[in-house]
Amino acid sequence: MLGAVTTRDEAAELDAADPLAPWRERFVTPDGLVYLDGNSLGMAPRAAIERLAAVASTEWAEGLIRSWDHWLDLPSRVGDRLAPIIGAPPGSVVVHDSTTVNLYQLVHAALALAAERGRPAGIAVSGADFPTDRYVVAGIARATGAAVRADLADLDGVGVVVRSLVDYRTAELADLARETARARAAGAVVVWDLSHAAGAIEVDAEAAGVELAVGCTYKFLHGGPGAPAWSYVAAELADRLDQPLWGWFAQRVQFAMAERYDPYPDVRRLLLGTPGILALAAADVGVGHVADAGMAAIAAKGRALTDLALALCAELGLQSPTPTDAARRGAHVAIRVDHADAVHAELIRRGVVTDVRRPDLIRIGCAALTTRFVDVYDGLRAVAEVARR
Amino acid sequence: MLGAVTTRDEAAELDAADPLAPWRERFVTPDGLVYLDGNSLGMAPRAAIERLAAVASTEWAEGLIRSWDHWLDLPSRVGDRLAPIIGAPPGSVVVHDSTTVNLYQLVHAALALAAERGRPAGIAVSGADFPTDRYVVAGIARATGAAVRADLADLDGVGVVVRSLVDYRTAELADLARETARARAAGAVVVWDLSHAAGAIEVDAEAAGVELAVGCTYKFLHGGPGAPAWSYVAAELADRLDQPLWGWFAQRVQFAMAERYDPYPDVRRLLLGTPGILALAAADVGVGHVADAGMAAIAAKGRALTDLALALCAELGLQSPTPTDAARRGAHVAIRVDHADAVHAELIRRGVVTDVRRPDLIRIGCAALTTRFVDVYDGLRAVAEVARR
Repeated sequence: MLGAVTTRDEAAELDAADPLAPWRERFVTPDGLVYLDGNSLGMAPRAAIERLAAVASTEWAEGLIRSWDHWLDLPSRVGDRLAPIIGAPPGSVVVHDSTTVNLYQLVHAALALAAERGRPAGIAVSGADFPTDRYVVAGIARATGAAVRADLADLDGVGVVVRSLVDYRTAELADLARETARARAAGAVVVWDLSHAAGAIEVDAEAAGVELAVGCTYKFLHGGPGAPAWSYVAAELADRLDQPLWGWFAQRVQFAMAERYDPYPDVRRLLLGTPGILALAAADVGVGHVADAGMAAIAAKGRALTDLALALCAELGLQSPTPTDAARRGAHVAIRVDHADAVHAELIRRGVVTDVRRPDLIRIGCAALTTRFVDVYDGLRAVAEVARR
Repeated sequence: MLGAVTTRDEAAELDAADPLAPWRERFVTPDGLVYLDGNSLGMAPRAAIERLAAVASTEWAEGLIRSWDHWLDLPSRVGDRLAPIIGAPPGSVVVHDSTTVNLYQLVHAALALAAERGRPAGIAVSGADFPTDRYVVAGIARATGAAVRADLADLDGVGVVVRSLVDYRTAELADLARETARARAAGAVVVWDLSHAAGAIEVDAEAAGVELAVGCTYKFLHGGPGAPAWSYVAAELADRLDQPLWGWFAQRVQFAMAERYDPYPDVRRLLLGTPGILALAAADVGVGHVADAGMAAIAAKGRALTDLALALCAELGLQSPTPTDAARRGAHVAIRVDHADAVHAELIRRGVVTDVRRPDLIRIGCAALTTRFVDVYDGLRAVAEVARR
């Protein structure tokens, strides 16, 4: 935890000393806006806007169908750019579809793995997890008859655990390696949702023994609104991953249009329909920026920004459920307020963009490539002022 | 069928008399290119390129998270633009995800409907249908134990039929109303794949009694590479559609983040994860152009272009499996050639873009808003010349 910073000048000094500060110039930063919602939608890289224009006006409009020659492997190429961000080896990540769809595939694949290991079909997912994860599990449970439990502490009767690494409300971080090992020891397979973690904190999926993971690219990876998600599969499982959603882009010899479905013996077997090229091209830029800046520097700045936010909360009398230990949280800070919707709306009127999680949380996102220490300072003072009224 | 057109001037006269000719100016048309592959990837509307730039640089980069206020219902708004193109009422179409994913949802929903009607779980899909459709069915069959049959003539033991309205190879058209009624009479539910039909021919889904349909937007709807697909559900079924892929964008009161999944009582219950806004915005323009030009005029020109193509085939000694009766085909023409891959590659070298479907077909796509009669004339002469070598 930083010492208490009570002046805006002190926050400005932290910005002046910030090695990542120059990255902000690569993004569009609207004048006068204090943007603290990069945990919901990351700011737009200037190069992503340029890339989109080039893909639309050159690759699509001029190249037309001929451009598929270099579009076909885009899900894998962007996946390889993303892999080091989560500590994954090349060839283990594909960028495609949405967190919902990818999670659906991987929960099914995990159930198949669990069955292979002689485990029951029970699925554990926290009742506090993001709705995406809970609804996907509920739909699968209803269709397959798998039992669902909301308690992650006891894995008796559980074959599959679905779990977010970073709690979307409080930012509390689970222990990736320990929880993966605990499930493994109990015979269960964890499907990790890294949506609030990828690009925010250091993740070493391979070292932690992670078998299956998904995440989005539109938050800390600056991929764009509704940008495609990604799937990670550990190398030793990828050739036999078994799930029921079979797409023609997973087909090993795709254009033979063969009768029999015969998917790639690697993570590409999760690919589905024709990939959305415009969105992938934009996401490639955001993911590339994060990879180039490096997760060590990004995570360090995330800790410093959230340290500042929590120090200001203490100073300003704001109550936060976010862990004070920087090693135990992601890159956002939650603040409990009364009338959260009204506070959120008034903050927007004042040019301070946070987000609200009902009933009583305002979230402050600290995206290392775009959020300044002065933004956190100005934002927190505004939250305190508005919440007090 | 037109009388034989033997000169380029006669083709040019058809262009001069074409009421849709001015639409071509709204698209980027690369100099000197004869583009006959709009059935795979439609040409780019100039306004789509402008819209993408505006969405990226204004709505995303400046509006940031605040833009979700007007993005949230984009899948429905684009769906309502698309609805008249397939003869569907407002509120019955959503644009989202991919043909693969949407088909997966609707085949499951159809199995549930079939069960409700006391039908067996058998699924019929032609062995000649597009791989997307066959692989989705195969995956579901393997997961659910449903039997698959490749014969659509006999529906004994069949609860669900998956069928493309336009054959992707030959362009042969099924009879939408008759085949829907035949299946209905046998107690089966048809999931129509209208990918090669929407924007190419007149479709009246409601009048034909269609219950469930999907299609893509990147072919005749000019939506962009890998543009999102759409789902159609007949009004009387939409409130109780039951399928296992549950997404948080289907949730009626989405931001309550409630424990229980409680989807919309309409076609929006098929929505899944966060929609891809960039791609939706581009697709909106292409879909809008087709809706504005009107399907009666588009279908009429499609018949005239394919008539010309088939007349030229006859004149030039090219063999086509495409029906000569314009009422029985979509808006492309297939030509059988030896060494199809080599012919296709040489055509591209000559600036004539068609596509190849192995082993022996070259396809000529006739997209009414962008394909000229002289393109068909030049393209067919080039095919004949190259195929003869």
